Amino acid sequence: MGDTLFAKIIRREIPADIVFEDAHVLAFRDIHPQAPVHVLFVPKRPIATLDDLQPGDAELAGRLLLAAADYARREGFAEAGYRTVINCNQDGGQTVYHIHLHLLAGRALHWPPG
Amino acid sequence: MGDTLFAKIIRREIPADIVFEDAHVLAFRDIHPQAPVHVLFVPKRPIATLDDLQPGDAELAGRLLLAAADYARREGFAEAGYRTVINCNQDGGQTVYHIHLHLLAGRALHWPPG
Repeated sequence: MGDTLFAKIIRREIPADIVFEDAHVLAFRDIHPQAPVHVLFVPKRPIATLDDLQPGDAELAGRLLLAAADYARREGFAEAGYRTVINCNQDGGQTVYHIHLHLLAGRALHWPPG
Repeated sequence: MGDTLFAKIIRREIPADIVFEDAHVLAFRDIHPQAPVHVLFVPKRPIATLDDLQPGDAELAGRLLLAAADYARREGFAEAGYRTVINCNQDGGQTVYHIHLHLLAGRALHWPPG
């Protein structure tokens, strides 16, 4: 899959509206937001898709969920609610081949989820 | 939140179409499927919402994603693709207050995700 847009954002080679960073995870706003809040959480280590996660990656994968939950709490919308989405490959609608968790909030999310 | 439908499924007090189980995770088909494949992955330990995850729960949370990815690979639709969704509280559309990851596949998932 080679180098992705998100790898360039992580290396600060292209700009993004970064809202959170720690040793393992970077989060920035989606440039095509689908809700009043739409933030992407990515592992700094490049992993192309959910299908590329290895058995030892459980903690890293979980850190994406925890980082999203922590952000929701800090921003004050955790109680109102939110949705997290990870797409894998074409049927999932994945467009950048570096795992990213979508956090959507600020409106009632509908069902089905796409 | 008390006892939930999913806790009863985990204890085998009510039936479900269970497709996977290990020490930490149980997976069963959603009774209102939104795609040809629609399976729920739940931690056996009852945690109400993403907002209730504690810092030490990263590995458990990640196990839900890894279990879904493993299932997709075994069932042969990982390459075609799939979507994973976790809803938190009312705006997210959460209906059962025991964390559950939705795995949807078997059709092209649309955008936005609800």
